[in-house]
Amino acid sequence: MENNQILDTIRSRKSVREFTDQVIEDTTISNILEAGRQAPSGLNNQPWCFIIVKDKITLNSIAKCTKYSSIIHGAPLLIVVMLDKNVMYDQTKDTQACGAAIENMLLAAHGMGLGAVWLGEILNKKEDVSHILEVPDSFELMAVIAIGHPVSDISHPKGRRELSEIAHNEKFGIPWV
Amino acid sequence: MENNQILDTIRSRKSVREFTDQVIEDTTISNILEAGRQAPSGLNNQPWCFIIVKDKITLNSIAKCTKYSSIIHGAPLLIVVMLDKNVMYDQTKDTQACGAAIENMLLAAHGMGLGAVWLGEILNKKEDVSHILEVPDSFELMAVIAIGHPVSDISHPKGRRELSEIAHNEKFGIPWV
Repeated sequence: MENNQILDTIRSRKSVREFTDQVIEDTTISNILEAGRQAPSGLNNQPWCFIIVKDKITLNSIAKCTKYSSIIHGAPLLIVVMLDKNVMYDQTKDTQACGAAIENMLLAAHGMGLGAVWLGEILNKKEDVSHILEVPDSFELMAVIAIGHPVSDISHPKGRRELSEIAHNEKFGIPWV
Repeated sequence: MENNQILDTIRSRKSVREFTDQVIEDTTISNILEAGRQAPSGLNNQPWCFIIVKDKITLNSIAKCTKYSSIIHGAPLLIVVMLDKNVMYDQTKDTQACGAAIENMLLAAHGMGLGAVWLGEILNKKEDVSHILEVPDSFELMAVIAIGHPVSDISHPKGRRELSEIAHNEKFGIPWV
């Protein structure tokens, strides 16, 4: 396993918001879910569940819960990530763990040539999404990931703050160069 | 970029808690930080900063803030992850974004043959850690990552719930098989 492979995947991954109609195979979906399942969590409590949505009726209902409905309408696949409050033990750590699981799935999708976008604004309607998916109250919406084959290679770079702005050497305020 | 490379990295990554004395090169550290920097975040607000700690005096002070002090004592490198409350806009999404950045750094370290462990219990003493690192009040400890060359290949598998337990097909309660 070489240095640059994982780093290249991480660096080249971008949000993709436009997809072709091409169906995503179930084996591919299982690989994405597997990546999510393998995420680390505090006390290994794995405080997540994933709901796979391909059905257009369900998808259209979910689209009504966000202002980014066009992305959802155009996606052949959603993976809905829920926090499992039955096993949670720490709000911060369990929320982070869900973030790690989401990132793993985004990376796996990208690594298989798919495009994906992490939708967070839909949390404003999290109860509605849970209702549509018949999710018990003991689960809470964390994110919706829209996935598909990208319409085209989107080549604009991701904007990120420089390391010198966010990385500190030994103490806060001494930039890592 | 092939399917199995990223998935293999994700699947084979494990918590490593024992390290050799071998120093980690600064270029390697920068690559790990770069992976963290590239994580996605809501509105691309990048609500994190990273503090690189190699100094043994600082490291020993931080070790006093956790019951897992032996891991920290034995680590040649800590990356301390802080939430930047100056740019945060949503507790859940910003906490998830930090989780994504942490996972990226764990994967990058693993991809370069290093071992690492995500330490969360230390959040019980988050103010103490911030004080040691002279971090302003507008930042909050999210995690400490201990990193080093692994003492030996740890081959026991990670315990994870099966996909059939955590993945649902179209609606909650219908297992994804």
